[in-house]
Amino acid sequence: MKRSKRLVSMTRYIIERPRTLISLPFFVEEYQSAKSSISEDLTIIDERFRQEGVGYLESIAGASGGIKYIPAYSAEYGESFVEELCEKLSDTERLLPGGYLFMSDLLGEPRTVDTIGKLFASAFVDKDIDAVMTVATKGIPLAYAVATHLNVPVVIARRDPKVTEGSTVSINYVSGSTRKIQTMVLTKRSLEEGSRVCIIDDFMKAGGTINGMKSLLKEFDAEVAGIGVLAEAEDEEEERVVDDYVSLTQILHVDDRTKEIEVQPGNLLRRLS
Amino acid sequence: MKRSKRLVSMTRYIIERPRTLISLPFFVEEYQSAKSSISEDLTIIDERFRQEGVGYLESIAGASGGIKYIPAYSAEYGESFVEELCEKLSDTERLLPGGYLFMSDLLGEPRTVDTIGKLFASAFVDKDIDAVMTVATKGIPLAYAVATHLNVPVVIARRDPKVTEGSTVSINYVSGSTRKIQTMVLTKRSLEEGSRVCIIDDFMKAGGTINGMKSLLKEFDAEVAGIGVLAEAEDEEEERVVDDYVSLTQILHVDDRTKEIEVQPGNLLRRLS
Repeated sequence: MKRSKRLVSMTRYIIERPRTLISLPFFVEEYQSAKSSISEDLTIIDERFRQEGVGYLESIAGASGGIKYIPAYSAEYGESFVEELCEKLSDTERLLPGGYLFMSDLLGEPRTVDTIGKLFASAFVDKDIDAVMTVATKGIPLAYAVATHLNVPVVIARRDPKVTEGSTVSINYVSGSTRKIQTMVLTKRSLEEGSRVCIIDDFMKAGGTINGMKSLLKEFDAEVAGIGVLAEAEDEEEERVVDDYVSLTQILHVDDRTKEIEVQPGNLLRRLS
Repeated sequence: MKRSKRLVSMTRYIIERPRTLISLPFFVEEYQSAKSSISEDLTIIDERFRQEGVGYLESIAGASGGIKYIPAYSAEYGESFVEELCEKLSDTERLLPGGYLFMSDLLGEPRTVDTIGKLFASAFVDKDIDAVMTVATKGIPLAYAVATHLNVPVVIARRDPKVTEGSTVSINYVSGSTRKIQTMVLTKRSLEEGSRVCIIDDFMKAGGTINGMKSLLKEFDAEVAGIGVLAEAEDEEEERVVDDYVSLTQILHVDDRTKEIEVQPGNLLRRLS
């Protein structure tokens, strides 16, 4: 097969399989090409990915070796996206009673959600993450987007157990903003002991929900390897109970009487190279 | 820029933007290459995609023209995947009390969910779909996967309204299997009148939940353009209230006393070319 055709096929194949080991012999067999040609192709792909700031190919040596595509988006790649997101979130039309912000339209756009996933996966690129966790419902698409680019499973905690889930572990936690005691459950089969877990959610105020997920992870003897939120908001009455998190945006000020919202980029971009 | 480098970049760029119009001048500018070279590149990419059975590039003529990548996976592409899925679902370890099947592990694998999304998007390739709809919680990742490859937004109906959603439309429906009256709500802002909507869910027994979503769409003057379920199961006591759906797998028989499950491919693959 000619190099031009091969490069199209290999690029597609690799892009669709982030963090998956692909052996050189697989490509040799698939495209009926010499190992040296395949190696050259991989060098071209690796160089292009690095130049475009979307990640790189990791080489694994040895008999069972090959390459892995590691998505790692640059700060430059994400900058204009995050700025645009802040602008969209600043639209006063989003104001809902109680100072909440309507975000379902943005969370309903698959491309937006996927880009957010890429940026979080890039921020956690060297954290050895085994699973992504969220709590139903709003965080689910974000969690899948992050997990796709980390190539790990998603586990979803719920606020109510379901009959189709089998036996569960449940904890009580205090919601940071309302001070109410709430319950969170996770199916026993869904997480292995000792897993390194990345917690993802759409919104964080005082951090009570995320703290609940942390408590649940303790019950599974799992480790918190990272925390990522799409939007963090100030809670004037409460102190934040979660630190060391990554945020894509930061809502500084919401006032539904004066119709003012102030949104700025969070700390995520600063963690990217 | 050399053709080899350009093909890597263009393939990645196109794959990440299904059903999005990309103008030739954009590529000309981005890669500082002649229009004739870019056209040749696009022909190579189109040919490879068709040969591999993953879709094609649609050409849009005229001043505001360009190309669109239409994901359209072949039956051949999906066959081994669906067979493997049937085998996994036939594992008696999945049996839960009441004849339910544990599927959260499969629905927690982003790659699996993405492949399911590709296959549904391919089955609905010529249905002019404007949005994908599901009801929380299990169908959400599937809906996003389908929507990603159709490049349309996702709307999520809920069984309970939330304060952060704004005003909602609600309907009552009868659950097919339990005969209970249930409520389903959808935020007013989330769907435009006249939209052509594809309904996606993980599981269908009598079809009550899907019928609920159909009723909700009627309230929005929206049209059902397609229905897709991951697994359809026989309900011996009830007649199915939904017809004309696409299913990836069909659960023929579940018996939690004799520990038997029989799963076979649904009708989806037969709709692909």
